[in-house]
Amino acid sequence: MTNNRCVRFVKTAVGAIDASHFTVSTEAIPNAEAGDIVVQNAFVSLDPYQRRQMMPNVAYANPLNLGDVMVGRAIGQVVESKHADFKVDDWALGHFGWQRYTKIKAAGAEKINLDGFSASTYLGALGSPGVTAWVGLRAIAKAVPTDTVVISAATGAVGSVAAALARSIGCRVVGIAGGPAKCQHAVEKLGYSDCIDYRDPNFKQLLAQATPQGIDVDFENVGGAIFDCVLERLNDFARIALCGMISQYNLIEPDGIRNIGEILNKNATLQGFRVTSYPEHRAQAQQDIKALLRSGALQPTETFVEGLEAAPQAFVDLFKGANLGKLVVRV
Amino acid sequence: MTNNRCVRFVKTAVGAIDASHFTVSTEAIPNAEAGDIVVQNAFVSLDPYQRRQMMPNVAYANPLNLGDVMVGRAIGQVVESKHADFKVDDWALGHFGWQRYTKIKAAGAEKINLDGFSASTYLGALGSPGVTAWVGLRAIAKAVPTDTVVISAATGAVGSVAAALARSIGCRVVGIAGGPAKCQHAVEKLGYSDCIDYRDPNFKQLLAQATPQGIDVDFENVGGAIFDCVLERLNDFARIALCGMISQYNLIEPDGIRNIGEILNKNATLQGFRVTSYPEHRAQAQQDIKALLRSGALQPTETFVEGLEAAPQAFVDLFKGANLGKLVVRV
Repeated sequence: MTNNRCVRFVKTAVGAIDASHFTVSTEAIPNAEAGDIVVQNAFVSLDPYQRRQMMPNVAYANPLNLGDVMVGRAIGQVVESKHADFKVDDWALGHFGWQRYTKIKAAGAEKINLDGFSASTYLGALGSPGVTAWVGLRAIAKAVPTDTVVISAATGAVGSVAAALARSIGCRVVGIAGGPAKCQHAVEKLGYSDCIDYRDPNFKQLLAQATPQGIDVDFENVGGAIFDCVLERLNDFARIALCGMISQYNLIEPDGIRNIGEILNKNATLQGFRVTSYPEHRAQAQQDIKALLRSGALQPTETFVEGLEAAPQAFVDLFKGANLGKLVVRV
Repeated sequence: MTNNRCVRFVKTAVGAIDASHFTVSTEAIPNAEAGDIVVQNAFVSLDPYQRRQMMPNVAYANPLNLGDVMVGRAIGQVVESKHADFKVDDWALGHFGWQRYTKIKAAGAEKINLDGFSASTYLGALGSPGVTAWVGLRAIAKAVPTDTVVISAATGAVGSVAAALARSIGCRVVGIAGGPAKCQHAVEKLGYSDCIDYRDPNFKQLLAQATPQGIDVDFENVGGAIFDCVLERLNDFARIALCGMISQYNLIEPDGIRNIGEILNKNATLQGFRVTSYPEHRAQAQQDIKALLRSGALQPTETFVEGLEAAPQAFVDLFKGANLGKLVVRV
């Protein structure tokens, strides 16, 4: 590799997106200055939250400017270090962006001991999506064994870890996913008791049948009309961990929610959370998820995109529900 | 008084209501059987929540059937007792309905020691609205001195007590009310630092000016478009005590909320609550509110409706924002 390859954000995104919002360019490999490291990224993470940073005029952490390298976490090995904390070949994780090589201040990178897991796992089950699942289920929704837990985007990077965690607590776990293949995968591989296809015309009735005791916890990743159906099944004192709303990010005018009256009637709590605001839970979350991975209770699904050139289209397709599990670019 | 007078619910209510949903009838005064008391009601409470019980097919505590005496708390004196806990002339409070005389099992009534306050206060500041204000502000939103607290329906039975409580905690308290007269009353009599008229075309801008540090706590009584404006001003980790949505109860198709994305982006918590689900706070709430009343920090406003015949129209007008403070029928 004698050049850097970078995916840059070049067109503001309101409504549906396509690959034209990005360019892929060949650039010079950066050199480390004092305090820097240069990382050769092995895997780059594609996540729904990145879409929110492409919106204009939205108060979200670090919105993107036109021309910026596309944001995203990545993991790779240090190829040059001018900081005492890192040496060449160390694994490093951080917001390195959609590119092959990243120059960054050492403080912006975390040294990773792979501890027997594949590097890509640190972008999924052991990375931000896994910690997000733990924080939502344990710190926000405070799930207990008697709970019926519903998880939308059931087979996604966050949902699949949330399911294993909820099952380990002893909850009844019901998924919501798009299409029979995902629903089958959810039940056969991810430990869901049941998984409902939101594309089924009888979705509402099927959800009711799958939650005969009502819903105590909703781990919400989708929003919109699906979320409104979940709200109708809430039990008294239900807790909703609002993690994301992937159905809304490509809409010019978001749907909002209709059934907010259910939150009032049911003494329910709807709590939004950004995982980066809860760093105090990270170590415990990773410890718990490592135990689930080692016991086989959690078998994370990863979908690999081959090469940065393929990243823009894969990201566009993420919002069509095309992938299964964690979506990762193999650089 | 030789007859009972009863207001009965006679027409299901979807959308806007008028007096035709009610009849006022002359009936026989009931006699107490073993275990009963008969109360002659002095004051009957008119509250927005009663509108929700008039809706068909809505899962809310005890929806009304056609022909039922209209629901509502009342306070009065015992005129006949066949239970050891009550004697004639005792003050009793309960869900006695919109009627002059109520026969009820003694267990369904609470004996009240007026403790120097007027009987009507036990339907307002010292009754369910006051306890609702305490529970929402203290137990749900957990307001602290550094908070900017916004209260919609600012001059209402709940809002006026919530304002005094928030001010006693040390919060900056900003009200939202309909029309300049209410806003002036809020600032001059109820302790609000500022009160914004939601009918003002510049409402959104005025709300921003009144909350220069953003909003930490929203005590939400209104819902709809006004609530959406509040959501845009939330600070990180804001708490919303969702107490009611008076703007929505007369709508055939509720507005819902648009800006739910703000709850996600701001790590905010939206918690619905029904005061009847939090009986454990009642004694402390009443103790705190009595202290505010005695010190003059809380000067509750009451609007009296003269006679049960006038109750239906007064209730209809409640949803047009016609009254100031607690709306009570003097029987």
